[in-house]
Amino acid sequence: MIAPDQILSHNQAQAPEHHTRLQYTEGVLERKGFNPAQIIAQIRAFQIAIPSWALGSGGTRFGRFSIGGEPSNLEEKIEDVGLIHQLNRSANSISLHIPWDIPKDVPALKQLLHHHGLTIDSVNSNTFQDQKDQVHSYKFGSLCHTEAAVRQQAITHNIQCVEYGKQLDSKTLTVWLADGSNFPGQHHFRQAYQRTAESLTAIYQAMPEDWTMLIEYKPYEPNFYSMIIPDWGTSYSFCQSIGKNAQVLVDLGHHLPNTNIEQIVSRLMHFGRLGGFHFNGSMYGDDDLTTGSIKPYQLFLIFHELVDGMSDPEVKNPNIAWMIDASHNTKDPIEDLLQSVNGILSAYTRALLVDRVALSQAQEDNDVVKAEEILRDAFLTDVRPLVAEAMRLAGGAIDPIALFRSAQVRAGLIEKRGKFSTATGL
Amino acid sequence: MIAPDQILSHNQAQAPEHHTRLQYTEGVLERKGFNPAQIIAQIRAFQIAIPSWALGSGGTRFGRFSIGGEPSNLEEKIEDVGLIHQLNRSANSISLHIPWDIPKDVPALKQLLHHHGLTIDSVNSNTFQDQKDQVHSYKFGSLCHTEAAVRQQAITHNIQCVEYGKQLDSKTLTVWLADGSNFPGQHHFRQAYQRTAESLTAIYQAMPEDWTMLIEYKPYEPNFYSMIIPDWGTSYSFCQSIGKNAQVLVDLGHHLPNTNIEQIVSRLMHFGRLGGFHFNGSMYGDDDLTTGSIKPYQLFLIFHELVDGMSDPEVKNPNIAWMIDASHNTKDPIEDLLQSVNGILSAYTRALLVDRVALSQAQEDNDVVKAEEILRDAFLTDVRPLVAEAMRLAGGAIDPIALFRSAQVRAGLIEKRGKFSTATGL
Amino acid sequence: MIAPDQILSHNQAQAPEHHTRLQYTEGVLERKGFNPAQIIAQIRAFQIAIPSWALGSGGTRFGRFSIGGEPSNLEEKIEDVGLIHQLNRSANSISLHIPWDIPKDVPALKQLLHHHGLTIDSVNSNTFQDQKDQVHSYKFGSLCHTEAAVRQQAITHNIQCVEYGKQLDSKTLTVWLADGSNFPGQHHFRQAYQRTAESLTAIYQAMPEDWTMLIEYKPYEPNFYSMIIPDWGTSYSFCQSIGKNAQVLVDLGHHLPNTNIEQIVSRLMHFGRLGGFHFNGSMYGDDDLTTGSIKPYQLFLIFHELVDGMSDPEVKNPNIAWMIDASHNTKDPIEDLLQSVNGILSAYTRALLVDRVALSQAQEDNDVVKAEEILRDAFLTDVRPLVAEAMRLAGGAIDPIALFRSAQVRAGLIEKRGKFSTATGL
Amino acid sequence: MIAPDQILSHNQAQAPEHHTRLQYTEGVLERKGFNPAQIIAQIRAFQIAIPSWALGSGGTRFGRFSIGGEPSNLEEKIEDVGLIHQLNRSANSISLHIPWDIPKDVPALKQLLHHHGLTIDSVNSNTFQDQKDQVHSYKFGSLCHTEAAVRQQAITHNIQCVEYGKQLDSKTLTVWLADGSNFPGQHHFRQAYQRTAESLTAIYQAMPEDWTMLIEYKPYEPNFYSMIIPDWGTSYSFCQSIGKNAQVLVDLGHHLPNTNIEQIVSRLMHFGRLGGFHFNGSMYGDDDLTTGSIKPYQLFLIFHELVDGMSDPEVKNPNIAWMIDASHNTKDPIEDLLQSVNGILSAYTRALLVDRVALSQAQEDNDVVKAEEILRDAFLTDVRPLVAEAMRLAGGAIDPIALFRSAQVRAGLIEKRGKFSTATGL
Repeated sequence: MIAPDQILSHNQAQAPEHHTRLQYTEGVLERKGFNPAQIIAQIRAFQIAIPSWALGSGGTRFGRFSIGGEPSNLEEKIEDVGLIHQLNRSANSISLHIPWDIPKDVPALKQLLHHHGLTIDSVNSNTFQDQKDQVHSYKFGSLCHTEAAVRQQAITHNIQCVEYGKQLDSKTLTVWLADGSNFPGQHHFRQAYQRTAESLTAIYQAMPEDWTMLIEYKPYEPNFYSMIIPDWGTSYSFCQSIGKNAQVLVDLGHHLPNTNIEQIVSRLMHFGRLGGFHFNGSMYGDDDLTTGSIKPYQLFLIFHELVDGMSDPEVKNPNIAWMIDASHNTKDPIEDLLQSVNGILSAYTRALLVDRVALSQAQEDNDVVKAEEILRDAFLTDVRPLVAEAMRLAGGAIDPIALFRSAQVRAGLIEKRGKFSTATGL
Repeated sequence: MIAPDQILSHNQAQAPEHHTRLQYTEGVLERKGFNPAQIIAQIRAFQIAIPSWALGSGGTRFGRFSIGGEPSNLEEKIEDVGLIHQLNRSANSISLHIPWDIPKDVPALKQLLHHHGLTIDSVNSNTFQDQKDQVHSYKFGSLCHTEAAVRQQAITHNIQCVEYGKQLDSKTLTVWLADGSNFPGQHHFRQAYQRTAESLTAIYQAMPEDWTMLIEYKPYEPNFYSMIIPDWGTSYSFCQSIGKNAQVLVDLGHHLPNTNIEQIVSRLMHFGRLGGFHFNGSMYGDDDLTTGSIKPYQLFLIFHELVDGMSDPEVKNPNIAWMIDASHNTKDPIEDLLQSVNGILSAYTRALLVDRVALSQAQEDNDVVKAEEILRDAFLTDVRPLVAEAMRLAGGAIDPIALFRSAQVRAGLIEKRGKFSTATGL
Repeated sequence: MIAPDQILSHNQAQAPEHHTRLQYTEGVLERKGFNPAQIIAQIRAFQIAIPSWALGSGGTRFGRFSIGGEPSNLEEKIEDVGLIHQLNRSANSISLHIPWDIPKDVPALKQLLHHHGLTIDSVNSNTFQDQKDQVHSYKFGSLCHTEAAVRQQAITHNIQCVEYGKQLDSKTLTVWLADGSNFPGQHHFRQAYQRTAESLTAIYQAMPEDWTMLIEYKPYEPNFYSMIIPDWGTSYSFCQSIGKNAQVLVDLGHHLPNTNIEQIVSRLMHFGRLGGFHFNGSMYGDDDLTTGSIKPYQLFLIFHELVDGMSDPEVKNPNIAWMIDASHNTKDPIEDLLQSVNGILSAYTRALLVDRVALSQAQEDNDVVKAEEILRDAFLTDVRPLVAEAMRLAGGAIDPIALFRSAQVRAGLIEKRGKFSTATGL
Repeated sequence: MIAPDQILSHNQAQAPEHHTRLQYTEGVLERKGFNPAQIIAQIRAFQIAIPSWALGSGGTRFGRFSIGGEPSNLEEKIEDVGLIHQLNRSANSISLHIPWDIPKDVPALKQLLHHHGLTIDSVNSNTFQDQKDQVHSYKFGSLCHTEAAVRQQAITHNIQCVEYGKQLDSKTLTVWLADGSNFPGQHHFRQAYQRTAESLTAIYQAMPEDWTMLIEYKPYEPNFYSMIIPDWGTSYSFCQSIGKNAQVLVDLGHHLPNTNIEQIVSRLMHFGRLGGFHFNGSMYGDDDLTTGSIKPYQLFLIFHELVDGMSDPEVKNPNIAWMIDASHNTKDPIEDLLQSVNGILSAYTRALLVDRVALSQAQEDNDVVKAEEILRDAFLTDVRPLVAEAMRLAGGAIDPIALFRSAQVRAGLIEKRGKFSTATGL
């Protein structure tokens, strides 16, 4: 952990330049009719969950290069998220991955969470790998499997995840299914769909009434011919048949080339069925890069839709669960997460700066240039001072990565946990 | 028109080789437990509509190279489809495109259709171009337009299309919307969706009860940032809200790269909402190439799903409207259509040869290799003799293109209609 | 034309906010060690050519919606580019498209160009359409055609283009070949390649020694199975065999999905073979949208490579010809071009703000986060005041679009040229 | 191993149906002017290498499901390839992956190879993972690394691979570089290219004169922003600068969406630089599926180019090294390889059946329909009896997979090697 006075002295060193920039930015906003303080408050309120599996070095099927000092149990993962949250005050929860994060000493965990100002976000089931001592294999699927016994095992696992989540006050189960087929003929598409629908329903009905089930989609990988839930349309159709607390989860890396993701976001909000979001960056597919690292304008356009939907009283969409879901193959995972949170908050902030009244008028007038320029004006605004100020006001650092580096946190973690400590989970 | 005895003498010349091949193929099928006569009967019964706009040379935005002898009015288009149907006996209907195919002398048209053994398939509205004397422009959309007057004009046009269709005993309205946006900010996605839903509903409610509305989707072109109906999920959501006779239309060229189209087909049939099909070939996008010319295995896999759904009594899907929708930039349009019909019938025939009982067992057993080999066995069967025999039995030619060429039909059309006759419509 | 005092009064009205922003931005740059005046001078020096075919409303194969007041001859096109240049002082040349822009009265044209401060950039041949009275058709190709007579016609046309260019002091011939095939089997790939190589060589050898031939590539459209020059590798191989003044031209919209274009740019500069650039925006393919409208970060990364290569003395690359190549289906063409120039200059300016010394060190250290943050810092800087100041200093407007609108230029053009005036060319 | 009489009795059982089909197919070919015996001889002569890493269950980054009985050392891998070759007589070599396949007892290995009728194909270096006791890490690249020491380590490893290969009479080194970057700014593209060129040259110069270096390209994965050799153009440029025995290797799964691979094949043969081929099937990216399982027509079109180039005396291309490179996540690896060899031979056979004289004429005439139909006629021919006959004549099985299954080979391997035996290598 970073000592509070480290943050303080970091912020003092950054203060002169920060305040010059902040003051200017606030002036620009005020002249446009925005209330900077309110926008900073909105940034402060925006909190993003960190998944337990994102705290170690990721890898590809071609190999993995460890960084050292990775957390090897749930307690250490909570510590790492606590550190992130201490630095940026924008990551106040952690998502669990079962079986790796099965809580053992629940009261101690709750205390640890409370100590770091964290809560448990969603619980994520895992039926895409076989665990030791598992009776049935998921090689040919889980909730869609042809054999009832395999499906039942996967259903039971999901219900068990809900039980673990209840212990730690989570209210959300996230279901990502790797189920699919690698070859034509392998699946009977309709029957596989129907079996999946029934399995999901069985899990849903075992959940408490105040829980939400998030259903993720992905077009390919780890199956390369078909995935049981390849697109938002399939997720949505499941949600419709399962119940009102079943919601679609959008992962930014889970789309075919050139997909207009922001339009999907708007559709789902229009239907009141956008329940969760997985952030990451993508150039080719599920690349799991830093959020905002490849297509920052697209990320802004997505947030433009999100903010628009969240601020429109006619939209009956539930609160959305925000989570980073990336794999850190190259960077220090904590630095990567700090960058990602920053990228997300920057996109969110810019979306708050869209002049929606003027935009709406330009849209009504079909003044395409003007509508676009309104968006671009928000996007081109350098919002870094606003994000930094939100963090500073909440007790965080003006430049979290700089402080993480100058405080030599990674070296400390390696010293404490060892050079070859490898994070569990995926 | 080709004289009947030309077909006869063509078939006589082809007979020896044809019968050798047919006999062998029938033997192979019989040894596998199939009834060749029944399969040939099924091929014969499969009829594909030809759109009125596919009878002239197409083009791209970079230019158009005319072939000459193109039909310049509805009567000549009917003649061309009649010729195709005479040759292959598998294209017994024509789809109209309004405003180009507005019927004038209805009794004469009916007589002409009857003479050629043709019926009218669907009626296709057009709101993606402005016509002379049109009050409002569709530059910024039609059914989704921000202005009520533009939407009303487009609604009225669609209802008018239904009226024209009723005169010629059509029962289907196909709606393809070019509506969309070229730039971020241009559209308010949710409002544009909602306006479109209301416009479609207004059209639907004006249709007779026994009519079907087919709603097509397309991810891009002619708009390059967003399309109002980019994917099957959006089409399907409209159908759900509009009514039971609203159905999704799948066009093979209207998907993002690498889309698993056969799975979409299976989904829609599972939901009972696959109403229509536009056939063409595609390498990059809406390339509008000859059906089966680029990915014949995918076409087979799609037909595998279609046949599976059509033969499963649990599937409550309506009859599907089959149509070719391609643009013939390089080939003689009639030859291209003959090839396309052949490609479609070949894929359909192979799908009829899938041993569904064995496949189902292999799928239950997760015997991936066996399931795949069952499909491949059907695909690898040379079904050309079966398709040719179906045409021959119905009075068509064993090799329609060869006869079209030897009879010098194009030269005749050029002589009759002129070298620079250009087809109307798009 | 806009009266100079209109620009002056526009600038005066914009001055207070502009100077506040400029002063702040200059301060930020100075504190980072940059010389703002020098950067503004570099922006001023950057000039982009406007193609003659971009001044009218474009269209797609599905239709075209005219805007009115479009230029209908070369003189009017020059006037429009003159207007753009007057507004932004960054578009000092025009590219010709033959046969539409064949110069008639050369002295008068030169005078007109001089009057507007313009020069002729490149000359663009056209062998993808048939012109009236053309002996041979390009339906099946031009420089790659199987028949020597067709190839010769296309070679002659290209040489003729050079002649026209010489009259107006151009030094560059741009060759974009639509040649390709729509179906497997249509082309013998190797022979088609070889014929094209010979045709290009024949043209090259007829060019004056101080001329450059730019060879463009494109993966698909208007041919949808193969293009004779689908990728940079093919362009480059032609350049190698043709001669040192043959150079590759990169068009941003001419790549397969997910291509890393900036890496191609760096490769070509490394080989000393990047001769030209066509700017536009793209979401799916050759969408021809406003430059920077879809992927502004990618545009910046491309300019990062360009600036890096141009400033590295070890790179032996010639000067690059910059041109906008877009199609304005939705926006006023002049507004679209003003936006595009602005987008290009913004990306260029940000690339000038990359701290290359620090970046190089971070790269040597494999400090990925730091290297990325250096780029992002440049990208996130709001450079609009710098671009506006460069224009202002050169005599242009601080906000060219705003002035174009307030001066009601389009209305004036419509009044002068008519509502239905349509631009010639493509 | 399968006892020879098992093959015999298998073939006897298959004989009646096989001979009926073969006789018919030969008749069809003869009537077209082909010599069936000669074609069967060509099929027999076509041999495909099996990589040592393809004999165990593959996996994705999300997990791996073992099948049991996998070979755990080089000797067992040779046994498995020997088994495949015994069944199909078309896989007479094995490719090594260093460090997993470092030969220990060379004479014994040679004897084992000889016993199975096998040779060593290429040697494949591995610098995309860190091995235990490795001094420098490849986390940030190998041949392109910023540090000379890392590059030297990778160069030395490659030269060591050549040494191992020489011991077993290989003549080919295959270099696939995972080198690349995950984020903008990470790489200085030009310098990374230059360093790679120098490293490759150093390896090349250390190779014996009769060795070939194959340089593979891949657009993405395991790096997701840039790869040092993303496309054929980059591979080719390296080959040009390195030397005449440097050749491009095409892996079917290493292309961006919608790439026309057959055209690349033709280009490289035209340049005399196509040295190697990695076969697999792909729907989305480097999916490593069974060869021919997704796009069999494309595979045929590729072989059409290969056969065309190999039979054209003007083409100065070296012999091509054929290898399967796939990952068997779902199927029994040996069954998958048997399917793949079959798929490759089928495509090759069909390519042999193209009437090249007629095709050439149709191409000269721009008779697109005819050219296409000539290709389709070859593709639609059911060549399975020819492939089976080639195997049978060479001593293999008519239906290798059926025999593999009925002989319960996998069960035997599991019994011998254990249920949890996992293949080494990647």
